[in-house]
Amino acid sequence: MNKVIKLEEKFSLFNDLWTPKIIDEFNGQQLKLAKVKGEFVWHDHANEDELFLVIKGKLSIEFRDKTIHLNEGELFVVPKGIEHRPFAEDECHVLLLEPSTTKHTGSVKHQLTVNDQDRI
Amino acid sequence: MNKVIKLEEKFSLFNDLWTPKIIDEFNGQQLKLAKVKGEFVWHDHANEDELFLVIKGKLSIEFRDKTIHLNEGELFVVPKGIEHRPFAEDECHVLLLEPSTTKHTGSVKHQLTVNDQDRI
Repeated sequence: MNKVIKLEEKFSLFNDLWTPKIIDEFNGQQLKLAKVKGEFVWHDHANEDELFLVIKGKLSIEFRDKTIHLNEGELFVVPKGIEHRPFAEDECHVLLLEPSTTKHTGSVKHQLTVNDQDRI
Repeated sequence: MNKVIKLEEKFSLFNDLWTPKIIDEFNGQQLKLAKVKGEFVWHDHANEDELFLVIKGKLSIEFRDKTIHLNEGELFVVPKGIEHRPFAEDECHVLLLEPSTTKHTGSVKHQLTVNDQDRI
């Protein structure tokens, strides 16, 4: 049987930025936590929607035609195939939901790309 | 393009208990909000895992062999096919994630069963 997951406790287990950690799975989706600060890389996910829920801090997501801003307790689903670039002025803690197959930089290979995401 | 969803604002839009409201969809999963208080009905979902994340208050989920307790910021995935009964002593606000096909009382027909869940 699964365990209760305490988000705060899980966030305390890592400090590296832009490297999502898998905390659980359900229905082929992975639940991940990430700490982010600064700018990520432009990318899209051809076949997968990606859900961002801000747990702490503020996250912005830049699109080619607009930018959206998320505060704590706010979420946004980036539709498949839409180029986006997350950024955060100060450190921000985010819950991510996406299919198990999703690479965090999409088809873009970048120095920030992590091939094997840790499970915590 | 999707909109930013503010959980607090969405929770302010309804007061009925045990009637999940759909707030968004991604990858065939639905994101729902529910206000709960008291005991729900024993049920299972044969083919779907169900994720509970407590946004406010405390939620317990009873299984045939144990009971788990969730506080704010804590989550639990109920695996497919496992009988469970959520309950909350005081009003609790919950974020639910499950496939679009999931009925909230599973195969159980009960006076609490809602056939067409509202989208807010």
